[in-house]
Amino acid sequence: MSRMPTDHRGRLALAAEAAGAGGLDALIVGPSADLVYLAGYDPPPLERLTCLVLRPGSAPFLVVPRLEEPLAQSAGAAELAEVRAWGETEDPYGMVRGVVGGDAKRVGCSDRMWAAHLLRLQRALAGARFTPASEVLGHLRAIKDKEELGLLKRAARYADEALGRLLQTRLETRTERDVARHLGDLLLETGNDEVMFTIVGAGPNGASPHHEPGAREIHFGDAVVMDFGGRIDGYCSDITRTVAVGRSPSELPHVHEVVMEAQEEAFRTVAPDVPAQEVDRAARRVIERAGFGDLFVHRTGHGIGLEEHEAPYIVEGNDEPLRLGMCFSIEPGIYLPGEFGVRIEDIVTVTGTGARRLNHASRDLVVVR
Amino acid sequence: MSRMPTDHRGRLALAAEAAGAGGLDALIVGPSADLVYLAGYDPPPLERLTCLVLRPGSAPFLVVPRLEEPLAQSAGAAELAEVRAWGETEDPYGMVRGVVGGDAKRVGCSDRMWAAHLLRLQRALAGARFTPASEVLGHLRAIKDKEELGLLKRAARYADEALGRLLQTRLETRTERDVARHLGDLLLETGNDEVMFTIVGAGPNGASPHHEPGAREIHFGDAVVMDFGGRIDGYCSDITRTVAVGRSPSELPHVHEVVMEAQEEAFRTVAPDVPAQEVDRAARRVIERAGFGDLFVHRTGHGIGLEEHEAPYIVEGNDEPLRLGMCFSIEPGIYLPGEFGVRIEDIVTVTGTGARRLNHASRDLVVVR
Repeated sequence: MSRMPTDHRGRLALAAEAAGAGGLDALIVGPSADLVYLAGYDPPPLERLTCLVLRPGSAPFLVVPRLEEPLAQSAGAAELAEVRAWGETEDPYGMVRGVVGGDAKRVGCSDRMWAAHLLRLQRALAGARFTPASEVLGHLRAIKDKEELGLLKRAARYADEALGRLLQTRLETRTERDVARHLGDLLLETGNDEVMFTIVGAGPNGASPHHEPGAREIHFGDAVVMDFGGRIDGYCSDITRTVAVGRSPSELPHVHEVVMEAQEEAFRTVAPDVPAQEVDRAARRVIERAGFGDLFVHRTGHGIGLEEHEAPYIVEGNDEPLRLGMCFSIEPGIYLPGEFGVRIEDIVTVTGTGARRLNHASRDLVVVR
Repeated sequence: MSRMPTDHRGRLALAAEAAGAGGLDALIVGPSADLVYLAGYDPPPLERLTCLVLRPGSAPFLVVPRLEEPLAQSAGAAELAEVRAWGETEDPYGMVRGVVGGDAKRVGCSDRMWAAHLLRLQRALAGARFTPASEVLGHLRAIKDKEELGLLKRAARYADEALGRLLQTRLETRTERDVARHLGDLLLETGNDEVMFTIVGAGPNGASPHHEPGAREIHFGDAVVMDFGGRIDGYCSDITRTVAVGRSPSELPHVHEVVMEAQEEAFRTVAPDVPAQEVDRAARRVIERAGFGDLFVHRTGHGIGLEEHEAPYIVEGNDEPLRLGMCFSIEPGIYLPGEFGVRIEDIVTVTGTGARRLNHASRDLVVVR
């Protein structure tokens, strides 16, 4: 499938404008999803400083280590920004000051820039107050265009397919690690470029939301939480399902039903202009009413795109209104320490009439072998 | 092979002591090689704050998102540090302030902590001046103990083997990307847990030191630069060789000879107490004398361990003396734009009598098919 060329020039202009509107003199963007989004450039994040410098009303600059100048050229980044290359014994932070101007008062810096770089930039731009770039870029990146939505749909479909293929195999007697690796292989087989993560938590391990799959064997009677994601052309998937192996633990059907209803209620709450936290509240109300409130230990969801986790965060305290084209997870869970966990997660997108799911794998509790 | 248990308690105590000696009130360490080194804990780096807080003379704290409390428990981190879990609507930065003390004056922060976290920590600890943690941790991590050295040797051996197996196959007519994938497969087959990176640059692409392998086909008469590394039990490999395919371009043997001599000269310069920059100077002198000084566009090397690039950096301006047990790359190169590049890289360790190579693959120019 061929991809429409992305309008990086348009994005760069919008970002510079947003920086200005946000009162920033400059935006400094290191290797990250921000840099991929703005300039299609994806160099390795290193101890050597690479950064795009945007200033409202001025042309963009790209500061790169000299040895990566040919990389920046071949990636097309040099057509979008004026490249300033620095040699190994030069001071790239001083070079950034030269571009930004020593009198800058407020500067945004990409959220994932390494602290070691930020600290040196702060020293070079001593008069500036730094803020996370997501304060101005988060809104731009949160609303997906048609092309991005297409990629997120493809990524979700591949994740659904990987799950479907896995569930045709036998889980019992296999280790979590083995199933996690299998899921990784299936994510690649179904069409992803990359495996982002694979969580497999069997029995009590399912009660640890970010469990690291290990040597635990999957037994008859286990609940198993599987949460995984791949990436295609930069865009991520993220899906969770909980299954029973052989036989359902006696409490599982009820808990699963509550989580499914919470997920559905949250889904139904989604619409343009609804504050993000309302979606979290909807899921939480269902779980609290069932008496499991203390066991739902995380937010209801997170935005997704070039990063697995990005704006908008579906969490109490975020009153940012949902907008058409936003994409995020809805993933309530209930975790019974020492017993099992249940989480059900889909990626959804905000449409004019509400939400649409990008994942279509069955959410019903299935008993597998 | 079984691994000796790592003395994390000892490392934590040394790090807290080093922080005190460096004038720091606290050291704040996020998910990174630093956290793995100090506490054997390797959670995903996320927008949710996880950090280890060390203070000279006090017991360590580990601040974790509530949903990762079970992960921290199962990783054994909870036995090394007092765990403080924060819920999704709580303020983890305020929690760190509570541990560090609002009157802290100087605080170290792990080099790879995300800027978004550092900026919020700076706001929470408004009276503190932050510095990169590597200023105190770099020295500790740079000197490898016996166990670490054993892992770096294994990693180097696997890289040598991967190269040997690759060179038994035909390169001509394959794309750079295909050869890079093959190298990745071989890195896993030879025993690595993980592929870190695979650079394959054919013909003119070899003149781009960090070239991203692409659709370029390898032709008869190409010089091909291959630079790659894997990871085993956390420890990295990194090797580069340059080969000729079918026939050597006419200038290649001379340029290759110069690079090989530069690498050898740098190798012979290594000894305890020699300033790191002397190793760079030794390589550079050889290349400058041959008239290629301007085409050696990067430093001579970098330390290696839990990270691909770490202290000591082998670069002009670094007068830090080499110490017994340090491990780093020696990788001079000459890059002829539009023609080809040559780089030869081995990992070496500092011994009582000089240096020892961890890589043993032949450095001679070989003509392959």
